[in-house]
Amino acid sequence: MNKPVVGIIMGSQSDLSVMKEAAEILNEFGIAYELTIVSAHRTPLRMVNYAQGARQAGIKVIIAGAGGAAHLPGMVASLTSLPVIGVPVKSSNSIDGWDSVLSILQMPGGVPVATVALNGAKNAGILAAQILGSSDEKIAERLDAYKKSLGEKVETDAENILSKGWRSALK
Amino acid sequence: MNKPVVGIIMGSQSDLSVMKEAAEILNEFGIAYELTIVSAHRTPLRMVNYAQGARQAGIKVIIAGAGGAAHLPGMVASLTSLPVIGVPVKSSNSIDGWDSVLSILQMPGGVPVATVALNGAKNAGILAAQILGSSDEKIAERLDAYKKSLGEKVETDAENILSKGWRSALK
Amino acid sequence: MNKPVVGIIMGSQSDLSVMKEAAEILNEFGIAYELTIVSAHRTPLRMVNYAQGARQAGIKVIIAGAGGAAHLPGMVASLTSLPVIGVPVKSSNSIDGWDSVLSILQMPGGVPVATVALNGAKNAGILAAQILGSSDEKIAERLDAYKKSLGEKVETDAENILSKGWRSALK
Amino acid sequence: MNKPVVGIIMGSQSDLSVMKEAAEILNEFGIAYELTIVSAHRTPLRMVNYAQGARQAGIKVIIAGAGGAAHLPGMVASLTSLPVIGVPVKSSNSIDGWDSVLSILQMPGGVPVATVALNGAKNAGILAAQILGSSDEKIAERLDAYKKSLGEKVETDAENILSKGWRSALK
Amino acid sequence: MNKPVVGIIMGSQSDLSVMKEAAEILNEFGIAYELTIVSAHRTPLRMVNYAQGARQAGIKVIIAGAGGAAHLPGMVASLTSLPVIGVPVKSSNSIDGWDSVLSILQMPGGVPVATVALNGAKNAGILAAQILGSSDEKIAERLDAYKKSLGEKVETDAENILSKGWRSALK
Amino acid sequence: MNKPVVGIIMGSQSDLSVMKEAAEILNEFGIAYELTIVSAHRTPLRMVNYAQGARQAGIKVIIAGAGGAAHLPGMVASLTSLPVIGVPVKSSNSIDGWDSVLSILQMPGGVPVATVALNGAKNAGILAAQILGSSDEKIAERLDAYKKSLGEKVETDAENILSKGWRSALK
Amino acid sequence: MNKPVVGIIMGSQSDLSVMKEAAEILNEFGIAYELTIVSAHRTPLRMVNYAQGARQAGIKVIIAGAGGAAHLPGMVASLTSLPVIGVPVKSSNSIDGWDSVLSILQMPGGVPVATVALNGAKNAGILAAQILGSSDEKIAERLDAYKKSLGEKVETDAENILSKGWRSALK
Amino acid sequence: MNKPVVGIIMGSQSDLSVMKEAAEILNEFGIAYELTIVSAHRTPLRMVNYAQGARQAGIKVIIAGAGGAAHLPGMVASLTSLPVIGVPVKSSNSIDGWDSVLSILQMPGGVPVATVALNGAKNAGILAAQILGSSDEKIAERLDAYKKSLGEKVETDAENILSKGWRSALK
Repeated sequence: MNKPVVGIIMGSQSDLSVMKEAAEILNEFGIAYELTIVSAHRTPLRMVNYAQGARQAGIKVIIAGAGGAAHLPGMVASLTSLPVIGVPVKSSNSIDGWDSVLSILQMPGGVPVATVALNGAKNAGILAAQILGSSDEKIAERLDAYKKSLGEKVETDAENILSKGWRSALK
Repeated sequence: MNKPVVGIIMGSQSDLSVMKEAAEILNEFGIAYELTIVSAHRTPLRMVNYAQGARQAGIKVIIAGAGGAAHLPGMVASLTSLPVIGVPVKSSNSIDGWDSVLSILQMPGGVPVATVALNGAKNAGILAAQILGSSDEKIAERLDAYKKSLGEKVETDAENILSKGWRSALK
Repeated sequence: MNKPVVGIIMGSQSDLSVMKEAAEILNEFGIAYELTIVSAHRTPLRMVNYAQGARQAGIKVIIAGAGGAAHLPGMVASLTSLPVIGVPVKSSNSIDGWDSVLSILQMPGGVPVATVALNGAKNAGILAAQILGSSDEKIAERLDAYKKSLGEKVETDAENILSKGWRSALK
Repeated sequence: MNKPVVGIIMGSQSDLSVMKEAAEILNEFGIAYELTIVSAHRTPLRMVNYAQGARQAGIKVIIAGAGGAAHLPGMVASLTSLPVIGVPVKSSNSIDGWDSVLSILQMPGGVPVATVALNGAKNAGILAAQILGSSDEKIAERLDAYKKSLGEKVETDAENILSKGWRSALK
Repeated sequence: MNKPVVGIIMGSQSDLSVMKEAAEILNEFGIAYELTIVSAHRTPLRMVNYAQGARQAGIKVIIAGAGGAAHLPGMVASLTSLPVIGVPVKSSNSIDGWDSVLSILQMPGGVPVATVALNGAKNAGILAAQILGSSDEKIAERLDAYKKSLGEKVETDAENILSKGWRSALK
Repeated sequence: MNKPVVGIIMGSQSDLSVMKEAAEILNEFGIAYELTIVSAHRTPLRMVNYAQGARQAGIKVIIAGAGGAAHLPGMVASLTSLPVIGVPVKSSNSIDGWDSVLSILQMPGGVPVATVALNGAKNAGILAAQILGSSDEKIAERLDAYKKSLGEKVETDAENILSKGWRSALK
Repeated sequence: MNKPVVGIIMGSQSDLSVMKEAAEILNEFGIAYELTIVSAHRTPLRMVNYAQGARQAGIKVIIAGAGGAAHLPGMVASLTSLPVIGVPVKSSNSIDGWDSVLSILQMPGGVPVATVALNGAKNAGILAAQILGSSDEKIAERLDAYKKSLGEKVETDAENILSKGWRSALK
Repeated sequence: MNKPVVGIIMGSQSDLSVMKEAAEILNEFGIAYELTIVSAHRTPLRMVNYAQGARQAGIKVIIAGAGGAAHLPGMVASLTSLPVIGVPVKSSNSIDGWDSVLSILQMPGGVPVATVALNGAKNAGILAAQILGSSDEKIAERLDAYKKSLGEKVETDAENILSKGWRSALK
């Protein structure tokens, strides 16, 4: 694959079961990424280095996932002017996800994080593709095709219900 | 100014006192934008037209603000593959902002909205600049300069406190 | 059965295990309905068509269920002047149901959605019957009979507890 | 005016400043209503009488508003098979409106309340009109005209911004 | 047993698995009670009769449990001047118990409900005993003995940990 | 006045503007009370003494109000077998009252606190009267009269609206 | 082991499965502790004695864990001037942990509790070590070593992902 | 004054009106402190330097205040093994303080922050004194005297109410 243009990082290896969906959808779109563990709280200097070197290394968008008092996305955003997408992870130490959501979303003026839904790593990957696709025609086309496929799936479901009745759709 | 590359839309003119901060910061960065009112609930077809025509019209990022059951950002995102930044507005009919935040943030898999903080229109503008700057060197430089100025303001404040004592900083 | 007068729609086939209760209770009341999948985010134009054509097609009440950032009920309400009943679904991507509830309930002035309880599809069906029954004597009678049966069930339970003791009612 | 077809009730005269919006919009639609105070907690038997007599008296839809532990809408719904629209009022004794919302919305299976947004009395009036309009062509036409006027207001605002610039719209 | 002085009622037989703890602790204290199902929403008139007849029937305290939009305790309190203890039940249709708690606790001025913790039926029974014991020496003595036994259990646990180490206390 | 039978305590003199309503309504009912400041956190031993001596001193019900991490009602309940009514106060250091409510309501099994609504000191006074009235005919009669007066106020309001129109009731 | 300098207490033996992590990490740091059950609500006087005697007994930091309306940490803090670390326990009677968190965290001015995350007993142990280590060089060194080991674990995980691919890290 | 042993830092000068209370109470206790502005998001490297140099500079406890997505306390805690006290500030961009509280409190295992109440800067100062006082007899004595003064204030208030009546205490 090509040189990574998306960097996917997460605070702990335990976040990988959620965050892998970002990698999988980027694979689908044929967009090269790198994926690693960077903990704001356990490896703060590694985080500083990662964030400060990302643009130089060719990264164009960073996806950062973390749970609980989730500081990784916001801290990375404070250290680079690349767009940073934050994924609130409902980790085992989280209070129903509220802490993850609020500590990523509620950034002060000057340092935005593009926050997606709780555990929304797939959407983070799509958003990264949209950011790249805003100035890349080919990616834009793939996104349009993906969007179309989402709609077709709904229409197939609807047709099945119409032809076979809704009870058949309940398994 | 040049042809707009950022579209700023909002559900109601009453959101303008919040959303204007997106326009102001884009002005600072020298990024051309258009700004208009598009209501998901009162002008749904206008919304469909706006969203479907945006890429064609040269828009690269859409910023959409709304309050209460805020459907504008998510619906626009469903109708374009451009990146859509959502600004939850704490409107008069909102329950402390929670409805605005959740109905923008919690999008289903497939259709992301890049959500910023409650009333975070300024950050929406900066995020739009970061998205453009991820493939535009000049905007990236302006973002770096902006970031530096944020830090310098803090350091000036800190020096004043050091030299004059913190009581003087309380006005 | 007769021509449908109630339209039951939902954002995803995965909502069907909740939404089927609306269909079942309408069956009980002998009210004809249609049921299909219409996604605000994946099939926005299908949604526009459905909502705009509903009254013409003979539909008198629409029941719309969705989860997370649930835009379907509100968007349909923006496109028709028929009464729209919204069912917040506690979907897998929902934060304990709060997002579903708030993004359906908190509609702006001008565009109401008649919201029922979280996962309250059965009540949505009953409410649809009540709306029809407000000008249809026969349905009103069935509703009164249904209401009476609810009370009789309670009284039977109470009598069993009285005669056999409450411990027997714990199975 | 004609015989009332909508009954607007509220738990306390202090709710009137919110609930009057239901009356005003029904006036606009030319729909006859009655308005009175019925407290679930202070006049429970008056409530029983009101609810049980409403259909007989020609009422087709009941709008009930209350705040805090708001029992009026649900209790009225338990006593009539007419559709009952509940308006959660953010009264002085309410915890940010959450108690009003939840104690109206979260009705058990069998007894729905059509809940609108916090303080959403205007939408309650529109919903009542939609319920009547589902089988009354004339009201449906007025609703369509109203819907159109909402959109036109947005378009006028948008045109003003386009012609005069957004700064002029900030007054 | 003697004539009941405590009335335990609940909105649905499904609440019995929680509410039985009130009965069990009253048994322990030797206080006679009656237990039955009274639904505010399904048997509103049965509720009116129960509440209005309770004092006459010799009842001195009413314990009422309900879930979701829990109206039973507050409505009973509106119909009698006996003290009413409300037990918020985390029923299957409840949003994490918040609806049950708020719709019982947040009663308007004039009509109190003595609310205990979510699912706190045992404490409701103890509170009923305390109310009776405030003017009944014998019950007061039993309450003091119960209180003492609670403390002794803690002290036994503490001694076991001291003598055997805390690891042994983990089973 | 007679020997106090109700003890009204609060954690801080700043709670008095809320808690005075308990005293005022007890005055109305002709029930003797004492009122003082007892802080769980600033005077823990004074609290122990107060709670342990209350029954002996003739007190039959304790009303305890506190805000924030409100420990006074629960701790007093741990030290006496008298019924303790807890009033969550929305103090200046409270997070919208949630801390006050939850730290009073959510007592563990064995030690109930009869919790009333946020700032519900008036209802605490009425509940104390109901507890006394459960075995005191005279107080019960005054409570019935009070209840009746609540209803009459509603009916007067309703009659005024009927005769003069609701607009006149908006002052 | 040496004389205990940390006192670990909890409201109920059922909290031990959470609170044991404080003991385990103190063991790792070679810091002597005592562990026992002290219930604010079931053994209030035992709590008074424990708190008042702790400093005299050589304790330098108290760790107190409790759930629901969790009064133990705050009450102990009211009775000693030692630093008290509070651990909100998500006990079976807790509403998703919110009650435990708020009733420990939101202490009034004058009586702080050093609150850690929900179920954060391990962090309570580390914080106790940090408090001791602020004036004890040896403990500070062990904390630095521990901190280093946390980072190394992350780096090992990151290297494994780099060499073997992230799919291998999903087990 | 002596060499500072407490470092008070905050994310923005606008937090000073809250954070000054920590300085004031440390002044009362005669404990030397330094106070400055360190922003996690605007001056991340300044933060790294501050945190890494603090112990070397003689600081024994750090008090860090921040609002919204408050990362300063947790990030400082990740960079030093000194005890870090976090003060959640209800800043203008905060959602009722919940974001500030959760993003400071909910730290992952390994990196504790000693969190105090929302806006609880005074308690942060007292907690810092308690930490120092746990191994410093003189500070412990001042803390005991302070604690005593808190109780005496309550007793004076109580005596005034006793002698002059509670109405006089309402100003």
